[in-house]
Amino acid sequence: MKIKGLAMLGIGKIGWIEKEAPKCGPLDALVRPIVVAPCTSDIHTVWEGAIGERTDMILGHETVGEVMEVGELVEDFKKGDKVIVPAITPDWGDINSQRGFPMHSGGPLGGWKFSNFKDGVFAELFHVNEADANLALLPEGVDPVSAVMITDMTTTGFHAAELADVKLGDTVCVIGIGPVGLNAVMGANLMGASHIYAVGSRPNCIKVAKEYGATGIINYKEGDIVEQVIAKTGVQGVDKVLIAGGNVDTFAQAIKMLKPGGIIGSVNYLGSGEFIRIPRIEWEVGMGHKSIHAGLTPGGRNRMEKLTSLVEAGKYDPSKLITHTFEGFDKMEEALLLMKDKPTDLIKPVVIIDW
Amino acid sequence: MKIKGLAMLGIGKIGWIEKEAPKCGPLDALVRPIVVAPCTSDIHTVWEGAIGERTDMILGHETVGEVMEVGELVEDFKKGDKVIVPAITPDWGDINSQRGFPMHSGGPLGGWKFSNFKDGVFAELFHVNEADANLALLPEGVDPVSAVMITDMTTTGFHAAELADVKLGDTVCVIGIGPVGLNAVMGANLMGASHIYAVGSRPNCIKVAKEYGATGIINYKEGDIVEQVIAKTGVQGVDKVLIAGGNVDTFAQAIKMLKPGGIIGSVNYLGSGEFIRIPRIEWEVGMGHKSIHAGLTPGGRNRMEKLTSLVEAGKYDPSKLITHTFEGFDKMEEALLLMKDKPTDLIKPVVIIDW
Amino acid sequence: MKIKGLAMLGIGKIGWIEKEAPKCGPLDALVRPIVVAPCTSDIHTVWEGAIGERTDMILGHETVGEVMEVGELVEDFKKGDKVIVPAITPDWGDINSQRGFPMHSGGPLGGWKFSNFKDGVFAELFHVNEADANLALLPEGVDPVSAVMITDMTTTGFHAAELADVKLGDTVCVIGIGPVGLNAVMGANLMGASHIYAVGSRPNCIKVAKEYGATGIINYKEGDIVEQVIAKTGVQGVDKVLIAGGNVDTFAQAIKMLKPGGIIGSVNYLGSGEFIRIPRIEWEVGMGHKSIHAGLTPGGRNRMEKLTSLVEAGKYDPSKLITHTFEGFDKMEEALLLMKDKPTDLIKPVVIIDW
Amino acid sequence: MKIKGLAMLGIGKIGWIEKEAPKCGPLDALVRPIVVAPCTSDIHTVWEGAIGERTDMILGHETVGEVMEVGELVEDFKKGDKVIVPAITPDWGDINSQRGFPMHSGGPLGGWKFSNFKDGVFAELFHVNEADANLALLPEGVDPVSAVMITDMTTTGFHAAELADVKLGDTVCVIGIGPVGLNAVMGANLMGASHIYAVGSRPNCIKVAKEYGATGIINYKEGDIVEQVIAKTGVQGVDKVLIAGGNVDTFAQAIKMLKPGGIIGSVNYLGSGEFIRIPRIEWEVGMGHKSIHAGLTPGGRNRMEKLTSLVEAGKYDPSKLITHTFEGFDKMEEALLLMKDKPTDLIKPVVIIDW
Repeated sequence: MKIKGLAMLGIGKIGWIEKEAPKCGPLDALVRPIVVAPCTSDIHTVWEGAIGERTDMILGHETVGEVMEVGELVEDFKKGDKVIVPAITPDWGDINSQRGFPMHSGGPLGGWKFSNFKDGVFAELFHVNEADANLALLPEGVDPVSAVMITDMTTTGFHAAELADVKLGDTVCVIGIGPVGLNAVMGANLMGASHIYAVGSRPNCIKVAKEYGATGIINYKEGDIVEQVIAKTGVQGVDKVLIAGGNVDTFAQAIKMLKPGGIIGSVNYLGSGEFIRIPRIEWEVGMGHKSIHAGLTPGGRNRMEKLTSLVEAGKYDPSKLITHTFEGFDKMEEALLLMKDKPTDLIKPVVIIDW
Repeated sequence: MKIKGLAMLGIGKIGWIEKEAPKCGPLDALVRPIVVAPCTSDIHTVWEGAIGERTDMILGHETVGEVMEVGELVEDFKKGDKVIVPAITPDWGDINSQRGFPMHSGGPLGGWKFSNFKDGVFAELFHVNEADANLALLPEGVDPVSAVMITDMTTTGFHAAELADVKLGDTVCVIGIGPVGLNAVMGANLMGASHIYAVGSRPNCIKVAKEYGATGIINYKEGDIVEQVIAKTGVQGVDKVLIAGGNVDTFAQAIKMLKPGGIIGSVNYLGSGEFIRIPRIEWEVGMGHKSIHAGLTPGGRNRMEKLTSLVEAGKYDPSKLITHTFEGFDKMEEALLLMKDKPTDLIKPVVIIDW
Repeated sequence: MKIKGLAMLGIGKIGWIEKEAPKCGPLDALVRPIVVAPCTSDIHTVWEGAIGERTDMILGHETVGEVMEVGELVEDFKKGDKVIVPAITPDWGDINSQRGFPMHSGGPLGGWKFSNFKDGVFAELFHVNEADANLALLPEGVDPVSAVMITDMTTTGFHAAELADVKLGDTVCVIGIGPVGLNAVMGANLMGASHIYAVGSRPNCIKVAKEYGATGIINYKEGDIVEQVIAKTGVQGVDKVLIAGGNVDTFAQAIKMLKPGGIIGSVNYLGSGEFIRIPRIEWEVGMGHKSIHAGLTPGGRNRMEKLTSLVEAGKYDPSKLITHTFEGFDKMEEALLLMKDKPTDLIKPVVIIDW
Repeated sequence: MKIKGLAMLGIGKIGWIEKEAPKCGPLDALVRPIVVAPCTSDIHTVWEGAIGERTDMILGHETVGEVMEVGELVEDFKKGDKVIVPAITPDWGDINSQRGFPMHSGGPLGGWKFSNFKDGVFAELFHVNEADANLALLPEGVDPVSAVMITDMTTTGFHAAELADVKLGDTVCVIGIGPVGLNAVMGANLMGASHIYAVGSRPNCIKVAKEYGATGIINYKEGDIVEQVIAKTGVQGVDKVLIAGGNVDTFAQAIKMLKPGGIIGSVNYLGSGEFIRIPRIEWEVGMGHKSIHAGLTPGGRNRMEKLTSLVEAGKYDPSKLITHTFEGFDKMEEALLLMKDKPTDLIKPVVIIDW
């Protein structure tokens, strides 16, 4: 059987291809997407070659789908189930998973399989490893269009707040308020931050940042962001900095606005630059307990279930992120190119295939 | 100089007394209350003799006040400052403080001084140890009537959520929704709980519980609370149980509704009973990683500043707790007796002296 | 094919039986034991009926063996490999494993399979689930007779120290110095405890306790152990108590000798009694931050590799625990009965089958 | 009254001076040294101007002394007591102390007072702030010459292991085996590391490193240290890297030898260089959970008591660090200059004044 998918043909080129349908191993599932969303990392992958050359690799890693087939050892899912598919699908028995880092199962970033070293979800059918451990049932009453945000944007953004160990009453700066950064704002808010300063400039994003708990906006077009933060907090700066945008130089800004004992939580994929540079003086000559934490989001079933429960309970509304909606499988290309063009009013597009 | 105060004369008896005004040591402050609130523990202390006999001890440990005098080594406060005074005022250099437990400075519960082993705040003037470390300025824009809640109710309730280490997406049961329990609900909500089941029955409290983030109410009058919780969560039960009411037998219920790996966070003062009894079978024969954490709230300046910042940032409104307001220093007795009578519509009374 | 094994025939009865050989699923391995050790929990299981009735269940869960067959999806092991087989073999993709509690995969204690709800290792051949995740290669230079201790005694004893979060310079009391308690002593020592008071009386055990880092011995035959500990530490007591013996009443003693802010780490299987009773007064009326942690040991491959690395590095010698050595498959019964009789000089017997 | 002391006269110049004796505030103590040790940081301060210009500032911050006077509010110490004086003497009520960072009381590094912004201990008499909280009694049976190591070398080295959160069975690389690095080795060993690779070349230091638990020595003169470590551990590298030497470029090496999910714990004072540079690729494009922790050691009384208890219990022998012993107050200069010259066989010199 052949399946159709939107693929990276090579660096800088995308196109529709046909491929053999994936095989379903004993622990696996085959799923067809019912809603998908393109991700900025798809753009990096294709047009910046961020992960190197790939040929005829189907793109996409954000989706809610329908189970079409399950392997003989799968117990909790069956054909017809509507499922949330995390962007990160670890090998749960791997040593790194046992060490507490399932996103690095099989090696650094090895939990990120879709559209990295395996065909992604922009296809008529895609393969999910360890289905019982990596799929989550879409609960009654949770909109699949909202749920598709959880698969990557929510979990990644919230992880920034987790990496920074946000505590009750913390003052937090969030650098970058694209869809991941907005979820970093929300994550900080859900973990109990009081003052949250969000660094960004686009009106749509600022609006959602405020709805998600930002108490102040820092516009980098209006001056140095470190100075602006210090003006609001006093000389000690903030308790935590969440990095969800910028580049290798953003860390120096974060260090400069951080209290002694503060923590940076970064989920930013650093696509270029040889070094992240930590300024020695403001890092207190290595003596200031300004900790630097950075990593890929967790994934898998439990993670999806926990985050989805926040939507069910009415504590978090991911639909605020969705600014553009397309309908039909063949609109994936248009949605992806929109992500590439990134018009000012864009936060996140979705493509509804059917349900 | 003499000061007047509302005192415990002995077990079961209260009355107005006159005493020598407290002296101000080099690190200390003398403060006059501008708003006070009676606490259920004042009731336990007087009418149940919970901490043993006390003679002519001025009551009260919840107040916002005005600094009247500071010691020669005090740097950050001066006469006239409006201050939030925590119920718990640790000795910060004590070994137990250095160990991370300032509430136990000088011995178990040694950070709780007011109306325990020192005159409390229901007086014309009261003494604060280590003023720079134990007072917090009342910020512009924060209502002192709200702020008085922070001194004990908020910090104690939130500590239940901290003791249970509430995480993003956790399902939580809060047992008891008096003023501390309501703050436990709020604390769990602020730390990212999704489903919060609050156990209680009084309409006023249920209303605030829902406003503070409870997603379900468990009425113990309608059946066994364990069965009701399991009916909502499935057999594994909840991730965390916060105990802010009940008695020594409440822990057995908590254990029974807790997942393996779950945590109990208790801030309930256990006034009677010889033993807390943990059921062996449901504790999984000691093998289930159901952890039991219980302790007195932290206090001091930083704690007050962090919690107050949540009010400033609009993330938390303690005024919802206040159901009864009295005006005038001499109304303290009436407010205390109201607390003793505990009418159905009472959550928390305050006495506004002046400001 | 039939295999022979030493089984629990029913409560109170053991005997040799023949059974169909286990089948090897795609992720599994079949292993033959080369060294085994009986465990006190085998005794509880058979003669106390601690886990209820079992019929013709092969006993044993401590072994080092040789891989005889692997499933088609197993990548890291092959026929002939010498392997350490943990007593606890989790299902790694299970939700509880993802939550951080693999020992409770599939439900409380669900990671404990051998001689609990599946045939154990006292057989010519036994089945291991998720072989890649649950077996560890026996390294060159590590004696298999020593390594068999790691599978349960070491990991369980060390877990007591982990549950109590032993820190540099902590004063620790270890209650019970059978083979698990001795490893609790060693675990506390390896995690940086200074003074370690070991509660026990048998000379062989006392000797090893001292070699493993105990700095004082508390003999319960010489008076109340709480009083003896307080006499050594002063009124505040110890930082941590590790429970590896006793019964449901041992927790009350532990609470009484614990500092405010102290932690109990228990790995004791509580076989009888309705309640664990926590004394209200010495638990500081629920306000003293005396935490109670108790749980089944972690298992799996990474755990075995980490603990074995301590043997490789010369930091820990498990052979000190072995007081009795048998040779030959058919000596399993004699070794088990020795464990039941528990002569004074016994710490741990092993049966060497061959290698 | 005048006191004599060995002072930094200005950058590059030391000399004996006379000064007014310090005053004893109500919480303070005045102490005379009975054993002192010079520290590499004294060398940086004087001859590299690492902390900027200082005029007539008495040097030294490692000492065991005798209490000569205490303030009226001091309760636990009296004239004649022999005391361990930590290099770091926090202001315990400060907000940063309450936040968990007493070493940053009053601002970054504010707990480091002696020979930084206050006269040090190379004097006939010196001043200690908050005596009850910052002094520790020298226990019977602990040699003051050994105890002087604890005040800075031990606590700083051990802190590297704490910052890296060394766990049972971790594989650790320690970069730098001067006196602090040797204590980092010891700290890793005490916290349960298995394989410890120590990077250094001087025979005296290598000998002590092995006695303190190093299982392998990496000589940077024999090739790239990253390659040497990877050759020993396999491609994943080590669990933890402790940095106690080198410079701003050492962090790049540490990142390269670290597993995903690994942690760097650095206690190295970074005296020069504009940036610490983190290599983007080996930091896994910011996605690898390779955490960077770095900070000044904790200090104060509880810290000294905990570390000293390890010496009392026979778990740690700091005397191995002492290679050169001088006798007499006036030998301080010679000892300091020896530290400056740093002969190959030097680990740590001490000056015994009398006792």
